[in-house]
Amino acid sequence: MKKSPRSEIPRKAVYRLSVYLRCLQRLKQNGLRTVSSEALARAAGVKSTQLRKDLTYFGQFGTRGLGYDVEQLAQMITDTLGTNSLQPVILVGVGNLGSALLSYRGFEQEGFGIIGAFDLEPAKVKRGRGGPPLHGMEKLFEIIRAARVKMAIITVPAAAAQAVANQLVAAGVTGILNFAPIVLHVPEDVTVNSVNLAIELENLSYFIQT
Amino acid sequence: MKKSPRSEIPRKAVYRLSVYLRCLQRLKQNGLRTVSSEALARAAGVKSTQLRKDLTYFGQFGTRGLGYDVEQLAQMITDTLGTNSLQPVILVGVGNLGSALLSYRGFEQEGFGIIGAFDLEPAKVKRGRGGPPLHGMEKLFEIIRAARVKMAIITVPAAAAQAVANQLVAAGVTGILNFAPIVLHVPEDVTVNSVNLAIELENLSYFIQT
Repeated sequence: MKKSPRSEIPRKAVYRLSVYLRCLQRLKQNGLRTVSSEALARAAGVKSTQLRKDLTYFGQFGTRGLGYDVEQLAQMITDTLGTNSLQPVILVGVGNLGSALLSYRGFEQEGFGIIGAFDLEPAKVKRGRGGPPLHGMEKLFEIIRAARVKMAIITVPAAAAQAVANQLVAAGVTGILNFAPIVLHVPEDVTVNSVNLAIELENLSYFIQT
Repeated sequence: MKKSPRSEIPRKAVYRLSVYLRCLQRLKQNGLRTVSSEALARAAGVKSTQLRKDLTYFGQFGTRGLGYDVEQLAQMITDTLGTNSLQPVILVGVGNLGSALLSYRGFEQEGFGIIGAFDLEPAKVKRGRGGPPLHGMEKLFEIIRAARVKMAIITVPAAAAQAVANQLVAAGVTGILNFAPIVLHVPEDVTVNSVNLAIELENLSYFIQT
């Protein structure tokens, strides 16, 4: 369900870089300047051999006996992830989940700004205060092109998701965060990450049965 | 980051069952009564050998030449996932993301009812209309016990998440959907599924760089 056009760093390692970054940010807040690979691995919930292997993507790094420079390592990961500057994102499908995500401020804090929301029937959308401008689908192509948007969030029903993905790809989007419970077919140079909250709960439901 | 106390069906296969179930529900809505393994596999985005292997967990099933009975297979998966009846769920941490999830009606549609929300400072929480009752943390243990809640959603900040998880486990919760960007340490009989929306976007951000 996940495609990786960039093959330099494996997808799972990229996820771990994000986790290391969050651990480093907490260490920094707590005033720590250096961290050993053992301590960082423990905080991230991985083995220290795994951590050291992941960090070899940055070449030689870390000083024996002193560990890693917290600030420097955080910056290298941020550079690699490409989250140095605010990344414009659009969201398509302002139903229950779409509205919920629009009211979530966490994306912006992490460097992603939702610059526009799109819906088939924008007039019917009930909106809270604030949030990005809401448009009809006929504006999708034009706005993606104008703002050079590369990332989109899909929160339309399953039946509509593939058609929306096709439109996004045609307009130049190369990264899709898909919340629709369907497998999207996209060209090889487009990355799709799928999140299905109901499926996560359903999965738990299986494992809590005794 | 994921633990599987029930080992009869592997975790990834359980996720696929959820996907098959959604495909079957769509087929049913479209009036189809039977489906071949090839067609169902294609809809679910897996190989038909994978699908047939996953369905062997139900024993012998399907009629050669006729395929699977859509209704019957959907029911067997629902029984296996334990989502026949509405499953009570609580949510801890009514910040931005917690509020967003409380306003999301999708969980209920899928058989999960959020029966209560908890926050350290319930008086400070800005609430929309509707939604479940909001309590202080001091009520957590009592309400989990009274309603025999087994599943919880954690949407507190990273620094508070482990302490909340400990309280949930002590009260009897055995399935946690964790949105805090931290690895939770729980006993072996507790399952944690982690979702981090910002990390999903960050992961995309890496792959869209050219």
